[in-house]
Amino acid sequence: MSTKTTAGPEIERLIQLLAKLPGLGPRSARRAALHLIKKKEQLLVPLAEAMDVAVEKVGICSTCGTVDTSDPCTICSDPRRDASTILVVEDVADLWALERAAALNCRYHVLGGTLSPLDGIGPDDLNIGGLVDRVQAGGVSEVILAVNATVEGQTTAHFVTDRLAGFDVRVTKLAHGVPVGGELDYLDEGTLTQALKARTAF
Amino acid sequence: MSTKTTAGPEIERLIQLLAKLPGLGPRSARRAALHLIKKKEQLLVPLAEAMDVAVEKVGICSTCGTVDTSDPCTICSDPRRDASTILVVEDVADLWALERAAALNCRYHVLGGTLSPLDGIGPDDLNIGGLVDRVQAGGVSEVILAVNATVEGQTTAHFVTDRLAGFDVRVTKLAHGVPVGGELDYLDEGTLTQALKARTAF
Ligand SMILES: [Zn+2]
Ligand SMILES: [Zn+2]
Repeated sequence: MSTKTTAGPEIERLIQLLAKLPGLGPRSARRAALHLIKKKEQLLVPLAEAMDVAVEKVGICSTCGTVDTSDPCTICSDPRRDASTILVVEDVADLWALERAAALNCRYHVLGGTLSPLDGIGPDDLNIGGLVDRVQAGGVSEVILAVNATVEGQTTAHFVTDRLAGFDVRVTKLAHGVPVGGELDYLDEGTLTQALKARTAF
Repeated sequence: MSTKTTAGPEIERLIQLLAKLPGLGPRSARRAALHLIKKKEQLLVPLAEAMDVAVEKVGICSTCGTVDTSDPCTICSDPRRDASTILVVEDVADLWALERAAALNCRYHVLGGTLSPLDGIGPDDLNIGGLVDRVQAGGVSEVILAVNATVEGQTTAHFVTDRLAGFDVRVTKLAHGVPVGGELDYLDEGTLTQALKARTAF
């Protein structure tokens, strides 16, 4: 289906860019663009401003790899956080899901994906070296591997465990309770909390 | 589910605004925000710019009610368009759908909705007066009511037909071919073209 609207190249471009968002196809992108234009003052103007602010302020934390408006991020620079425990996640969305569960008051490390030879994603494409550096720097007693219960996630967990083998650090994984094949970001907060409490040695 | 991300109020606000788009809930809004932040240069920056341009340039055509970057709009100001035929639609999305079908090289009129007493939407809330004005100004030989095949759409069509009864204008409706209860914007271009070709007197 064409994205043609006859409404001028500026609206075409807005629709084409909206269609690149996850969850929006060409048709829903047209609907979203129309909705934005109709709700110009209530939605389009504030969203345009929020995006301008994000462009200007949001970046990647050089310590843990999450996104935030400060570097180090809010979590890494919070002295009330237990810096001796690092929760390792694949993606920022998983970090957010675990934070909503509010199960542990710890630090995080975002790998930025999983090992996937078929997709050409090797160890150097993930933020694994940064994790090893943090452990090597000392003060970390436990690394919790909170990766997805997928083949790629578990492969990645094994690889990270091997890289941390020489350090005096306990490496644990989430308890069973995470459905096999499931993704963390889909789970309710109670399940995440239980899986964290019953975590076992890797 | 909370929208809390720990990533600062700026990202929270971006997610909350994205969640107001049709088709995006809180969870998909978080995914969309993360996607935008990760693809900052390729997507967030261009989308923020496209929205700024839309805020500045996009408005409503004072003749037909569609959205465009010029007033009168591209269609209303195009001398190659047949000004004697006005295709009346509920929504701009329907106008776009009919234009993609490219079945008629005519002008349009966007009502901006349908009569819906239960929702408090009466004739004065729709762009019906503007249509009567255009017909009254002369030069219009046919008004095609391309409204949705819903109860509200058909009620609105009857009302518009009554309002145009005193004028020397042929009022037609889309041919059967539009599925009962269906919405124009969901139909393929072939169905729309056939429905237009076989239009009947209202
Ligand atoms: Zn951080
Ligand atoms: Zn117009």
